[in-house]
Amino acid sequence: MSPAPAAPARNTSNAMAGSELAPIEGFRLGAASAGIKTPGRLDLVLMELAAGSSVAAVFTRNAFCAAPVEVAREHWQQGDIRFLLVNSGNANAGTGEQGLADARECCHAVAALRDFPASAVMPFSTGVIGEHLPMDRISRAMGTVMADLSSANWARAARAILTTDSHSKTASRRVDLAGSEVSISGMAKGAGMIRPDMATMLAYVATDAAIAPAVLQSIWQDAVEHSFNRVTVDGDTSTNDAAILVATGCAGNPIMRDAQDPALAGFRSALESLALELAQAIVRDGEGANKFVAVRVHAAQSEAEALQVAYTVAHSPLVKTALFASDPNWGRLLAAIGRAGLEQFDVTRVELRINDVLIATRGARAPTYSEAEGQAAMAPTDIAIDIALNRGDAEATVWTTDLSYDYVRINAEYRT
Amino acid sequence: MSPAPAAPARNTSNAMAGSELAPIEGFRLGAASAGIKTPGRLDLVLMELAAGSSVAAVFTRNAFCAAPVEVAREHWQQGDIRFLLVNSGNANAGTGEQGLADARECCHAVAALRDFPASAVMPFSTGVIGEHLPMDRISRAMGTVMADLSSANWARAARAILTTDSHSKTASRRVDLAGSEVSISGMAKGAGMIRPDMATMLAYVATDAAIAPAVLQSIWQDAVEHSFNRVTVDGDTSTNDAAILVATGCAGNPIMRDAQDPALAGFRSALESLALELAQAIVRDGEGANKFVAVRVHAAQSEAEALQVAYTVAHSPLVKTALFASDPNWGRLLAAIGRAGLEQFDVTRVELRINDVLIATRGARAPTYSEAEGQAAMAPTDIAIDIALNRGDAEATVWTTDLSYDYVRINAEYRT
Repeated sequence: MSPAPAAPARNTSNAMAGSELAPIEGFRLGAASAGIKTPGRLDLVLMELAAGSSVAAVFTRNAFCAAPVEVAREHWQQGDIRFLLVNSGNANAGTGEQGLADARECCHAVAALRDFPASAVMPFSTGVIGEHLPMDRISRAMGTVMADLSSANWARAARAILTTDSHSKTASRRVDLAGSEVSISGMAKGAGMIRPDMATMLAYVATDAAIAPAVLQSIWQDAVEHSFNRVTVDGDTSTNDAAILVATGCAGNPIMRDAQDPALAGFRSALESLALELAQAIVRDGEGANKFVAVRVHAAQSEAEALQVAYTVAHSPLVKTALFASDPNWGRLLAAIGRAGLEQFDVTRVELRINDVLIATRGARAPTYSEAEGQAAMAPTDIAIDIALNRGDAEATVWTTDLSYDYVRINAEYRT
Repeated sequence: MSPAPAAPARNTSNAMAGSELAPIEGFRLGAASAGIKTPGRLDLVLMELAAGSSVAAVFTRNAFCAAPVEVAREHWQQGDIRFLLVNSGNANAGTGEQGLADARECCHAVAALRDFPASAVMPFSTGVIGEHLPMDRISRAMGTVMADLSSANWARAARAILTTDSHSKTASRRVDLAGSEVSISGMAKGAGMIRPDMATMLAYVATDAAIAPAVLQSIWQDAVEHSFNRVTVDGDTSTNDAAILVATGCAGNPIMRDAQDPALAGFRSALESLALELAQAIVRDGEGANKFVAVRVHAAQSEAEALQVAYTVAHSPLVKTALFASDPNWGRLLAAIGRAGLEQFDVTRVELRINDVLIATRGARAPTYSEAEGQAAMAPTDIAIDIALNRGDAEATVWTTDLSYDYVRINAEYRT
């Protein structure tokens, strides 16, 4: 068991630097270098869960899910998870029967060291698709990563799960839960291929709160839906993504057995804010990203419709290249809104703002708008695009990036 | 009336050079320089139709359709079209009430020169969105473009409608129709923003065949669906697109009054082949395109499903950057297929080929596949990606390009 955490600030964020997070009692992490893709690089992470921990999981919706996703889902459904094993550098995806056997063998190798069944381990992989795992090198590193387990190892683990990311992403919260102070800490990886449906993204969040599995799953699905599933870099989704929330129950609060319990409100809010912080850190680290863009759709008929418009805008290559150029090319924005496929859409009701400057109204350039004002609005790194459809009360926001030379370079050179 | 055409080859294509096409009796073209965006550049085109011509039209489905699209559709529905007027350099889109008034004024200026009502003119515009037309300069050029009318002016007109295109796109066919030899000639413009639903693309095709308007419309919709609506560069659609087919009836064939008439088979086939040639020329000229890629989906449950998979692959930025790099990154292809949203999709049935090399089978890398073979397959400019879903009998093909540095450059710099 880890020592009790030193009293951290209530909201300890650390998306840039990767220094130590609030430890979570009952949750230990280890990292090692197995030499999977690059010799000497940390590329193997093991997380150990206290007995009786609840585990919530959200997996990729890509029909081509990778071998470790299949095995992780199978083991998770059996319950009694004690370890999460992650390797970077190789996705073990598109690897057929051999890939499944390799993922199972990874679980067995961890479990055997501690006399657990292989089903106590959930495996995760991220990296290049279509190559088999170097099982010999991974097996040799298993003892090292087990020996490294410590509740103070978030920063090392957060580095080890990265692929094309330029830095690690971590965040922490402290919040009251039914009279007990509980901690939440988490880490994520992901840079390109980010979009809803859990694109190439891994997230591991742990709390010492005591929460029943079904309640934890419900809370986690809600948080993921409004965080990781609201960010997009390029519209591509991955075969390997997963977001895991572990609740060790070591904080001593009365176990939460009802997802609607009002006592959970603060915890839900803290968890969603942590997840959103990690998700936004992924967008800011998007491959070749120069801009951090919030696309906010207001006054839609439904949240689904608001998301439809927001994603059409956020995925438009023409909008994204204009963002890269800091060009207030609102014609491309209107064109993207216009092709989002809304029924009975009266474009003359649309109002468009960029960083609070009114750009278009009644389906045309606003009379008050000047190009100089538009260029000033597009200059900052952080851009808010506000689209009012003026046909209902629903709204939704997605976060994205621009499309730059560097995006093309990183993705054209990734395998070379 | 133009002179009778000199006997051309039956299949005269001219997508690259822009030299003269088969003239169409009853169809004259003129071009002029109005100085709309760039002084001295041809940017105004007028086409004159013989009395009694049939006109078929397909317009953009973007809800933000530009002012000229609204006016063109309105005039077309009234019938008796005698002129098509096109300007490049300015799209007259996102221009509100003033834009509509300007489009109507353009029609009036043409019609007044020849004592027709304004409704005899269909207006079209392409270029920058959100700026008002320079009406004084356009009006001054109207007499010049009218005086330039000639049936031998396809090449000049084809140049004048271009925007970011690197060259003009034209094609011609001769075909037997119920015992008469008829001609079909056409021109198109478009380079970026190409995708189904009539993206920033203009196409004007004329034939001297005699075909009733409703029959012509049916034939044209079929041809557009399998040509212009099967090409995509970046998934964006435009506010201004239109594809027009004119039948002057001067060839003297018995007028076709039944779309199912077997005598139309050869004409339909020639028209679709001409439209596909123009559409593929647009893709090859896609902004920053280095590859010409056919995505063919086989053995799908329906054509709609086949198109769904084909477009998901063709629009994937990760697939497109891999194509730019000539990287046989089949993992990205499988991932794109996997997120296309098919119901009850068994990925282990999928077979994937690139230029006839079997890359993946049973959801994983083919046992026979080698990276060297994959790299050789990806090296040519023309790439065929064949995806067999093996769950039905339907198929569909779309054509697209890679995503290159130049795509970003052209679209980031377009307005500067």
